[in-house]
Order: sequence, then C-alpha cells, then structure tokens
Amino acid sequence: MGDRRKVCIVVASRANLARVTTVLEAVRAHPALELQVIAAASALLDRFGGAVHALEEAGFRPDAKIRLIIEGQTPTTMAKSTGLGLLELPTAFEMLEPDIVVTVADRFETMATDGAAAYMNILVAHTQGGEVSGSIDESVRHAVTKLSHIHLPATRLSARRVIAMGEDPQYVFNVGCSSIDLAARTHRGTAHAALSAHAGPGSPIDPSEPFLLVLQHPVTTEYGHGVDQMMATLHAISSFGAQALVFWPNVDAGGNEITGAIHRFRNEGVAERCHFIHNLPADDFLRLMAHCSCMVGNSSAALREGGYLGTPAVSIGTRQRMRECGPNVVFASYDPLEIATAVRRQLAHGRYEPSDLFGDGTAGQRIAEVLATVEPPVQKRLHYDPADLLEPVGER
Amino acid sequence: MGDRRKVCIVVASRANLARVTTVLEAVRAHPALELQVIAAASALLDRFGGAVHALEEAGFRPDAKIRLIIEGQTPTTMAKSTGLGLLELPTAFEMLEPDIVVTVADRFETMATDGAAAYMNILVAHTQGGEVSGSIDESVRHAVTKLSHIHLPATRLSARRVIAMGEDPQYVFNVGCSSIDLAARTHRGTAHAALSAHAGPGSPIDPSEPFLLVLQHPVTTEYGHGVDQMMATLHAISSFGAQALVFWPNVDAGGNEITGAIHRFRNEGVAERCHFIHNLPADDFLRLMAHCSCMVGNSSAALREGGYLGTPAVSIGTRQRMRECGPNVVFASYDPLEIATAVRRQLAHGRYEPSDLFGDGTAGQRIAEVLATVEPPVQKRLHYDPADLLEPVGER
Amino acid sequence: MGDRRKVCIVVASRANLARVTTVLEAVRAHPALELQVIAAASALLDRFGGAVHALEEAGFRPDAKIRLIIEGQTPTTMAKSTGLGLLELPTAFEMLEPDIVVTVADRFETMATDGAAAYMNILVAHTQGGEVSGSIDESVRHAVTKLSHIHLPATRLSARRVIAMGEDPQYVFNVGCSSIDLAARTHRGTAHAALSAHAGPGSPIDPSEPFLLVLQHPVTTEYGHGVDQMMATLHAISSFGAQALVFWPNVDAGGNEITGAIHRFRNEGVAERCHFIHNLPADDFLRLMAHCSCMVGNSSAALREGGYLGTPAVSIGTRQRMRECGPNVVFASYDPLEIATAVRRQLAHGRYEPSDLFGDGTAGQRIAEVLATVEPPVQKRLHYDPADLLEPVGER
Amino acid sequence: MGDRRKVCIVVASRANLARVTTVLEAVRAHPALELQVIAAASALLDRFGGAVHALEEAGFRPDAKIRLIIEGQTPTTMAKSTGLGLLELPTAFEMLEPDIVVTVADRFETMATDGAAAYMNILVAHTQGGEVSGSIDESVRHAVTKLSHIHLPATRLSARRVIAMGEDPQYVFNVGCSSIDLAARTHRGTAHAALSAHAGPGSPIDPSEPFLLVLQHPVTTEYGHGVDQMMATLHAISSFGAQALVFWPNVDAGGNEITGAIHRFRNEGVAERCHFIHNLPADDFLRLMAHCSCMVGNSSAALREGGYLGTPAVSIGTRQRMRECGPNVVFASYDPLEIATAVRRQLAHGRYEPSDLFGDGTAGQRIAEVLATVEPPVQKRLHYDPADLLEPVGER
Repeated sequence: MGDRRKVCIVVASRANLARVTTVLEAVRAHPALELQVIAAASALLDRFGGAVHALEEAGFRPDAKIRLIIEGQTPTTMAKSTGLGLLELPTAFEMLEPDIVVTVADRFETMATDGAAAYMNILVAHTQGGEVSGSIDESVRHAVTKLSHIHLPATRLSARRVIAMGEDPQYVFNVGCSSIDLAARTHRGTAHAALSAHAGPGSPIDPSEPFLLVLQHPVTTEYGHGVDQMMATLHAISSFGAQALVFWPNVDAGGNEITGAIHRFRNEGVAERCHFIHNLPADDFLRLMAHCSCMVGNSSAALREGGYLGTPAVSIGTRQRMRECGPNVVFASYDPLEIATAVRRQLAHGRYEPSDLFGDGTAGQRIAEVLATVEPPVQKRLHYDPADLLEPVGER
Repeated sequence: MGDRRKVCIVVASRANLARVTTVLEAVRAHPALELQVIAAASALLDRFGGAVHALEEAGFRPDAKIRLIIEGQTPTTMAKSTGLGLLELPTAFEMLEPDIVVTVADRFETMATDGAAAYMNILVAHTQGGEVSGSIDESVRHAVTKLSHIHLPATRLSARRVIAMGEDPQYVFNVGCSSIDLAARTHRGTAHAALSAHAGPGSPIDPSEPFLLVLQHPVTTEYGHGVDQMMATLHAISSFGAQALVFWPNVDAGGNEITGAIHRFRNEGVAERCHFIHNLPADDFLRLMAHCSCMVGNSSAALREGGYLGTPAVSIGTRQRMRECGPNVVFASYDPLEIATAVRRQLAHGRYEPSDLFGDGTAGQRIAEVLATVEPPVQKRLHYDPADLLEPVGER
Repeated sequence: MGDRRKVCIVVASRANLARVTTVLEAVRAHPALELQVIAAASALLDRFGGAVHALEEAGFRPDAKIRLIIEGQTPTTMAKSTGLGLLELPTAFEMLEPDIVVTVADRFETMATDGAAAYMNILVAHTQGGEVSGSIDESVRHAVTKLSHIHLPATRLSARRVIAMGEDPQYVFNVGCSSIDLAARTHRGTAHAALSAHAGPGSPIDPSEPFLLVLQHPVTTEYGHGVDQMMATLHAISSFGAQALVFWPNVDAGGNEITGAIHRFRNEGVAERCHFIHNLPADDFLRLMAHCSCMVGNSSAALREGGYLGTPAVSIGTRQRMRECGPNVVFASYDPLEIATAVRRQLAHGRYEPSDLFGDGTAGQRIAEVLATVEPPVQKRLHYDPADLLEPVGER
Repeated sequence: MGDRRKVCIVVASRANLARVTTVLEAVRAHPALELQVIAAASALLDRFGGAVHALEEAGFRPDAKIRLIIEGQTPTTMAKSTGLGLLELPTAFEMLEPDIVVTVADRFETMATDGAAAYMNILVAHTQGGEVSGSIDESVRHAVTKLSHIHLPATRLSARRVIAMGEDPQYVFNVGCSSIDLAARTHRGTAHAALSAHAGPGSPIDPSEPFLLVLQHPVTTEYGHGVDQMMATLHAISSFGAQALVFWPNVDAGGNEITGAIHRFRNEGVAERCHFIHNLPADDFLRLMAHCSCMVGNSSAALREGGYLGTPAVSIGTRQRMRECGPNVVFASYDPLEIATAVRRQLAHGRYEPSDLFGDGTAGQRIAEVLATVEPPVQKRLHYDPADLLEPVGER
C-alpha cells in the first residue's frame, strides 16, 4: 500500500448509501486514507431513488459509474446483473487500484463487488456480516463473509457468528451499524416539515393524525408470491383507514410483483389515504421514522434505525425473521388480519424506548480507523477449525 | 419438481470432468433422475485439455456450451470470467429448468454456477466442501458452501466443518470424493501403455526407469511470483536428472507465469529429460499416477487419487497446505533444494499403503441417490447459531 | 444446409413482432424451412408490451430467451444492451445452428443479431433495408445492410438504394413490408370493439367522437430533449380538447424522458380526455388505426400501415423525416402550435385513399420463398464499385 | 465541445498501434486537441504482441484498459468479444467524455468501438474506410462507414467509394494511411540490426542471404480451412529451402488453426530455416520489410507499407483480393505450387519502385488537423440518394 491507503466504496442503491454515508465521510476525512467512490446498479436509476444524485450533492463525485441492472426484476435477471457487476467492476478496480474495497451487507451488488475484489487480491472489508434474515440475502451475506478479509459486523452477536464460522478474530471488529450514525445525528424536526417537502400525487398526509410508513420489498426466495404478499399488507392497512406513506420496492427479483400489487390496489379505489413515494433523502426518511405511528413491511430499517429511534414496527413475512432486534418489532405472517391486528397493537402501544443494539452512532469513525490500520493477509484460511467447535455439542 | 428430477451438471475443466464422471454416469443411470450437462469455460478450450471432447466421447452431449474465459490469465480476467459465467449460465438454466444444479469444488466457474443457481432459486448441490487449502479457492470453497443447499463433502472432517459453519446436518452427506471412483475402477495397466499413447515432442520417457509427474498450477493469491515458483520446481527436477512428465498449468490467474517459466526452462537447454504435455485422458493419467515414482507440484490429485493409489508426492508451496491428506504427501516450500531433497526422500521410500481417506469408490452412486431423494428448502438459514458453538471455547 | 433450412427469427420488441408475424407463419408453414424463434430484449419485458406472451399465444414457443436490456434508457445503456445481445446471441446461435438468421429493420437488437450472425458465418436476411429516417436507426439500418447477405427491402426505392450502396442485385428482393400483411388481413371491425377490450384508467374514449392515436418514441440522437418534445405534443393535443389514446414509448435511450413528460402532463391536470396505454394486440391496434381520426407522433406505423389504411397522420420531428411515404402524412416540427395546426388540418381532411407503397399483403409469403431458395456466398464483397456510379455525376 | 476537443483513440492490437502511432503523436501535439487513449483487446495480451507495452514506452499511458478477448478464436468467440467491447467501452466513454472517438480500419474491435460511440451520440472518425478485401473485415469496414461521422480514407478511390455509398463529401477526407507515416520516417538501417535484436529459438536468419517475411492471418469467412491454408504456405516455403521469418497469427477466428499448422509444420522437421516470432517493434518490422526478399501471406501491410517500400510480395488467398495495390504484389491461391512459383518470380524480380498510393507520410498530421476543425452533425442521414447514382447505369 502507498502513503495513503486507497479505500474504494461501492455505492449500489439508495439503501446502500444511507448505510455508508458516515463511512464515506470518515474515510474522506482520515489523513491516512484516500477515498474512491464507485456508483453502481440501482444507485444510477431514478426509479429506485437515484442515489447518485444525493451522493454527488454530498460532494462525493463517483470515480466510476457501473450500469449493471438488467431489466426484468426476475431471479434470472438478478443473477445476470450480479454477473454484469463482476464483469465490469474489475475494469474499474484495475483503473483505480484500491488497497481496500468496502462492500455493504448482503445484496447481489455486494456479491459482485466482493467477488471481483477477492479474485483480484484486493482486500475486502464487509459491513453487517453475521446477521440472520430471509431471502437470498441470507445466503449471500455469509458467502460474502467467507470471501472478505476484514469484518465490520454491527452487533456483538453478529461478530461472534462471523468468528465461529472460521474467521480470524483479529480481523473482526464489532463497530456497530453506520446507519445508526445518521439516525443519531439527524435533527428529528417534525413530520410536517419532512412531509411537506415531498408531496406526491393524491391527498396529502396529515401529520397531526397517525400515519404509517410502509416499506415492503420482494423476498427473492418466494418469487411468484409477491403480489399476494403485498396485497395482504395493503388491504390490512386500508381495512382500518389509516394514513400511509407507501414506498415503491427495491430492484430485487419480484420487485415488479410488488409494483403490480400497488397498481392493482390503486385501481381498486381504496387507496385514498395512501401516498406512494419513490424516494426520500435519508434525513427526511429518518424524520418520518421518528414521527410515524408505525412502520409496516419487511425493511431492515425498522429493526436498525427503527430500534434506535423507538419506532413501533410490524415486520411481515420471512425477510427479517430471525434477525436480531429490540422490543419495537412485532412479527406477522402474510395474513391481512394478522397484520392489521399487529399494527393496531403497535398503534395502541406507541413509541418504544430507544435501543443501541445496532450501535451508538460512531460506526463510521470506527470503520475508518480500522481501515487505516488493519493488515490482514490476502491469503485467507480458516483461522481455527469450525469442526473443533462442534465437538462439544456432540458428534454426529 | 416433475416426475424425474432434472439434475444439471456443469463441467468446466479437465480436472472438473475427472471429478464428476461417475456422478454423470450415476445420474444418467438413475431412474428418478434426468441428466442435463453444460460444458463451460476451459472445458471448451483445447489448450486446457478440451474436456468437452472426452465428455462427448463418453456419450454426454452438452445441452449448452458456455464460452466464458476472458483471455489473459490475470486476477482481473479471472474475476471477469466469473462474471461472464454468472451472466450467461442463467440463460442456459432458464432454458433447461433444472431442479438441482451440481457444482464441483472451489473454482471460479464453481462460484459462477453456484451464484447463478442460488439467485434463481434452483437447489445447488456442492461437492468437496469443507476442505482447507490455499489460493483464492480456499475462500471460494467456503463461500460456495454458504450458497449451496445440498452438501456432498468428501471426508468426515470436511462434513463436520460444513456443519459447524451453520449448515443443516440433514443436508450434509459425507459421500467421499468421486475422483476416487475413477481411480478405484481404472485398470492400472502399465506405465508403458499409458506413455506410448501420448508421445509428445522430445525424447520419450523410458517407463522402466523412474519418472516424475509434475503438475504445478498458479496460486492466484501469489500472482506475480509464478515464474520463480515454477522455475524452482523445474530446476529441482533437472538438478538430479530425473525423467519428468510436466503438465501445462490450468486457466487460473498466473497460468501465463507458469507457462512462461516452462518456456524459459526449455530455452535454458536443461530440459532434455522432461516431456511437456497438455492433456491426458483420465484413465491414462491414473495409470501414470499408479506407476510414477513421485508426483511433484501442487495439484490436489496428489492428495486425493494419489493417496488412494499410494503414490509418493511432494506438495510444493501453499496451494494444498493444510488440506487433509494421508502419509503419501511430503510438503516443501518454493526452494529448489528443499524440493529436491523431498523428492529424493520420496524416491527412496517408494510407494505407500493405499488410503481411503477421500472415499472408497462409491461416491457417484451415493451422490445420485442423495440427489434423487433429498428435499431441502430453497430458503436457507443458519441451521444453528455458529456463535453458540463458540461459547465453550471462551468469549472474546 | 441440411434437408430443411433452419431459419432463426429474433423477435426483440412489440413493434418487431407485428413486423414479422406473417414471416413467422410463412416460414413455419414452408415445407423446405424449419423455424427457430428467439425472444429477446423488450419482447420479454411487460412494461414494453411483453410481446413474448403474444408470441406464445400464437403458437411460437421461443427456442431461447435472451434478456439483454440494461436498465436506464440512456445512450450508454443502449450501447451496452447492444453489447449484451452480441455477447449472448452467439451462445444461442451455437446451440440452434441456424442456416439463416432473419433480423428486422434498424434497432439496436437488429445490430446485435446481425453482427452476431455475420461474425459466425451465418447468412443474415434483413428486412426494411434502404429506407431513410432519423435517430441512430438511420445509421444502424445502413450498417446492417452492409453486414447482411440477403436483403428484403419494403419498397422499390429502398431496393435501389441497397443495390447502389454496393450490394449484389441478385440478393436484393423488393418484397414489401410484412407489417402490411397483417393490416391487409385484419378484419377492421369497429373502434368500439377494440377500445372496450383495453380499458385503462381514466375516463373511457368515446368511439363515436373523433379520437387520436399518439405514439411518440425518443429520438436517440436528440437525447436530453425528450421531455420538451413530448410536452409539445401533449400540449398541442390538449389545447383543442381532443380525445387521445397515448402509448408509452419504446425502450430506446430517452424513453424515460418521454415517460417523464407523460407523468408531468398528467400531474398538470389537463389530461382528462387522454388515455395512457402500454400495449395492444396487433389486431386491435390495426383496428384503432383504421378508425381513429389521426395518428400523432413519430412512429413509422403511421407511414406504413397508416398509409395502407389511409389514416391521416401528423409526423413530428426528425425521426421519420425523409422516409418514403404516401399523402396521408403531414410533417410538423416540435412546436405545439404547428402540431395543433397540422392535426386540425388532418381532422378536416379525413381519411385518405389507401396506398400500397409498402406492399400488398404478401410479404411474408415472398420472404419465406426467398429464404427457401436463395444461395448467397458467406463472403460478401462490394458487388460493383459504388465509386463507378459516382463518376457520371461529376468527380469531386 | 469544450476548449480543447477530447479525442479518444482506441488501440486494440499490435497492427492497430502501427497504424495510429502518428495519429496519437499528432493529436497529442495539437494545441486544440486533448488526447485520450484506451488500450483494449489483443493489445493487452502478450501472445499477440502486447502492444500496450510499446504504447506505454512511447509515452501514451492508457486512460482505460478494456480486456475483451473471449478465449477460443472461433467465430462464436469473435462475435462475443465484439459484444464484450460494446458492453464495456461505453463505461469508459462515460468516464472520459470524449468529443470524438477515432477507430481504425475493419476489425471486430473497430465495430465495438464504433457502435458504442455512435449509440452514445459521440462523433466517430474512421480510418481506412472504402477499401475492398475479403474476410468478415470487408463487411465490417463498410458497416463502420455507415456508423461513422468523419471519414479518413487512405486513397482517392476509397474516398470516392465512401461518398458513393451516401456519405456527405464534406466529411470525407482522403488523408492517406498513417501506417505510411511510420514507414516514411523510419531509418531503414540494415536487416542485420533488426534481426539481431530479436533472435528467437532455432538457427538464426542470415541477413546476407535472401529471407522471406511470412504473415498469414485467418480468413474468418473460411473458418475450418486455416490449417490447410497455412500448411500450403509453409510447404511452399520449405520446398525451395528459403530462410523465413514466420509470424504467429492475429486473434481472429481461426487463429488457432494457423497456430496449429505452425506446430504441425515444426513437428514435420522441415522447418530448420524458419524462425517463428510473436512480435516485433514497428520500427524493426519496417526495417525487415525494407530488406527482406519477399513478403508472403495475406497481411495488408504487404500492400500498404510494402508498396511504399517497394517490397516484393505474394498475397495468398482471398483476404486481400481486390484491395487496391501497386505493382509489388502478386496474388496466389492456396496452392503450394502456385505460391512457390509466385515467390520465385518475386525473388527473381527483386525490389520495386516505391509507390505513394497509400499516402506520403503526412496522414497523422492531416488527421489531427481534420479532428481539430471538422463539425459534422451527430444525426447522420444519407447525404444524397445512392439510388440516384444508380439511374444512369440502368434500372433493374
């Protein structure tokens, strides 16, 4: 590595950006680090929030833009988009020659980034390893752990899982989740301010009355069921006439099913208290989380930032099932009645005590510090034998 | 799944083919299974042995051919070739609609195959998981485990490692290595017969005198050092004038370095007792293993089939370091003196007792049987918490 | 070539399908031909009409599906999508081994299809060569001519242009446009029937009153101006309160601009007499062309089928400028006033005499006959020297 | 365009580099131009001469490197490599934002470069348009003309052909071939100097005796015949025991056939007076052309630089058939006897008078001047109707 370590961060979606903003800032500010940014995938697409604009407004001009989303939102195109990332990112890495690549969480862009760097003998630092969830993300997250050299899990339990899978504890750092950093520093303002800035079509949300935030993404391993799953949620909401701000889904396989359900729901003529929204700056989104009555859907934000902010949440289906979380989350299956009941319960409960399970707001700083000093070998090998751990619990 | 389960096996190299031949046969013969074959990557390239010809001669006509090797043999092109596989294999999978995809070991083609199927919600069965080695293969092997639904490790220890990493024991089958199947059934004949069929340029190998088999592949994580590493081996061999059959390297990053070393070595004019060979049918290769005096290099065949056949072997460098093996293997670093000493010691020792560490010759059958009956869920999740296993060895 | 010539037709969009339906039928019915079908590009995407469904309903099951649209609808992604086609189509061609590939018109999928086949020494038959238009299509159309072996232009003038560019007259066949075949055989029914089958959101179109058909696609060479161009059209229409059925644009670069303009227009609240529609079966689309008061926009259908049906049309901007057409077309620039004036003039004029400039309804049959008998060499070469033609008009 | 026009030159092979070296220099030196360089395709591969090293030694550091050769050298992989170029070059163009892209001649990399830029509304300047030859290059060259905005043909006749195909004479510049620039300025030295610098294996060439330069590339449209074609040439040469410097072929489909023939020929044991060589700096290559007794094969260099230098040449087969040339070239079919006879005739004749058919050594300068001032529209359209030219020669 040269005088200053070159750290390349790949920003691949709107959600991605929220989770690395403070890392971007901390790396840029660190005297021993040089920041490189690649904008890729749905971060370049307006219908998924066009995170590249927010990135540029925040003063991070991408060193490369990699357009890799193959249209279709099917399992086939998701696999192919991963391939396109693995095909093109090496070209960018070859030009930029980073010392360390930072990749986030568990998405197909993560997989592409991580695979590209690992094959190119570039050190990979991975955030949010060791968590448990549903969707293909669950498999990808752990696969990415096995390809990464530097682990930046968000909780103590996650860190222990990463180590137990055979990673060297020397390179596992429980830094917290950088998404909490943003939540910690954003002035919570009022719902009114956040809402008025982003009026979409339809009757406006009245912030003085209760309103829901609905974020439901496709579950790739349940592809083909997305329409029914989303209709269940939407019908549950409309059944008791709550105001709701409904977000369009992400780019994963099945996103078109969620989109289709929203269109069908609107055509049913019962959506009059719902607003549909493509995008929101991270700050305004956090403000709405801080003021809404309940989050509904299957976004991990309900568990992470939601936990930190004490926002009541109903997590639907399998996507977040088994992920660590605080008391603010109630789980429900894809049944409209069950969802409606859970939401009512949360509305009755009101806001929760804040939890620092996912961090205390210093993750960005801590990550930059790790990146500036850590020196793992490029050649990975099981640090200790996971099988040795198995012994105590009995031989099969 | 339909009446007969469609099992798609991706054959991606010469080494690959040797390791799935009996699986191909057993799946084809199984009444509850329907075989699909994809030939890909270096299996389609003559300079890497053109395994597709052997495949077709054995009566397996590929349902699709995927040309995915981007020329260069650098870390960049290896990453990109992985991407090309992930881009094209989904198209083939969409046409063939397999119920299960079988992928072998730990190569970049394995990664592409596995990632493509996993994202497409197709069950993936993975052979040779849970082993430990060097090169990027080490990382990829474990990543592939985390993406696969059905695990077919080759040894008891490997199986335990796979389970300890959080995989469900219900879907982990210690079936042995199917490469041993071929070794078990091949009539060992004589070295003379095997040699005479494959005369290349240069003075012929005299099978009545000792001869070495040299297979040394690039170590991707040590890219840039391949020339020196191979020269060390070649000089060691030529230092005591042994006859040697030297194989060209595989398609990995750094293959051009190994190739360059061979060219340089030949130009030095000390290669008169060496033969250089691109390819050998699996049967003849096994015969030579059964009759050679010593295997030299870093191929895993020295540990697997070599162990089964009791062939003395010198394993050089980091590529196989820490992989399970029997007594037939002596390890050496990239030092010509150390290599020469180790080879001499093995020549003095002579052949070893056969070992069934990697199986007893029934892997193909057992794999087909597993594939015909196993019913794992598409949605994976950590079966038990690896962190729970960690507890007994002390909290960090 | 074998007993029956294998003819592979690549269907890449909704518009594409309408233009090869009778060719598909005629090739399938021809005793000397064997039909192969590849569905690709936006033909696989529901938001562009999902032509693959219509294809399958018509009994043409695709032999391969190639998903190649990289999302974004920018000049960059259009170029990249072309590349993806050129990357994947060869894999399909290698599996299908066609004797002749048929490619349509002038789109980026045409370019990919044509390039792939030409490099693979497969004969290429190209429809609609020799026409003149705007957009990048103009360049691509002539480039495709230079790569194709068999030319199937739609008009006499087009055929002469193809020859004058150096193509061998022996392989240039003025067969007419197969889009006219469909127009010739479709029972024209009533607008009412066609409209009632495809009710979208908004107040229904009343077929007893005049209504417009609006199809405006992006002009790739004017990328960045699409919003203004489309707003001009929409404002022109709304200015005199005509009923209008407005189609969403195709997948070309700038499609998102047209889409954005439609959204903006709807938000302006002046769209109450407009219906917005994604897709229409070819038959119903032809019925609406036969009964509407005027076509507005820049689709070539207004010149082709519109001419045949005598439908008044206003062609806006540069996309069709200079294309051969009959008297039914009036051209206008991107000026709302000019557009409104032209539409009024056409409404006042009413329907035109039908024209057979683009064919008489037998193109499909004639194309199949050509494909069954033509025997061009794979190696092309300028048939005669275009420079020799230049002489008479004076040396530069 | 900005203050200085950004001119991006894509260097894609060893041959390519020789043909744009003076353009690179002239653009770099021009006060109104800013040079960008992309190294791509076989220019990055050592076994095809690794032109990137020469490029860097000449002080041209590539702004991007695009690895796009899919290994195999078959028609399928050639098509796919074109696709890979079209997929990746747009990413580079988006980063570099060139005003004009310069692309050379007629290769698949040319096609990819040209297509990428044209779809992205970037002006394309094309050298060597309007020539006639064999192989797929013939089709590609004219297709590229139809996609390009600025034409830089090498001869007066070529310029007239480009115009006759419908291009606007205002943007057609007969500048000569920049390969001649190098020939004009290279000090011809002695064969001895050039030879001694590049000794390969085998007995050295004695420059005081006659020696041949053999360059034979695959003819893609005759794929499958390459072995026989090359064997005919090699046998012809060995039949009268001439010294020969034989070059390995380029990366086109069928290159492996030519390579295979060379290996076979060497194994036949009659190659003792032949040297086989991968690469030569352009200057040394020109020196050898200036001093050899005859060029044999199918390289266009025999017609271009060979004509300028007066080097006797035998052009074999269809690859250069019909290309404009001077008296120094004799054509022969793939018949060993015919080839041998033609070579003998050339040896008897000796060197020819130099010809300036392909230029006078000022092409680079003239091209830079054109690029600095030309202002073609992005939207192309047939300038005049080629069909109008056809009229005088009679209607079909």
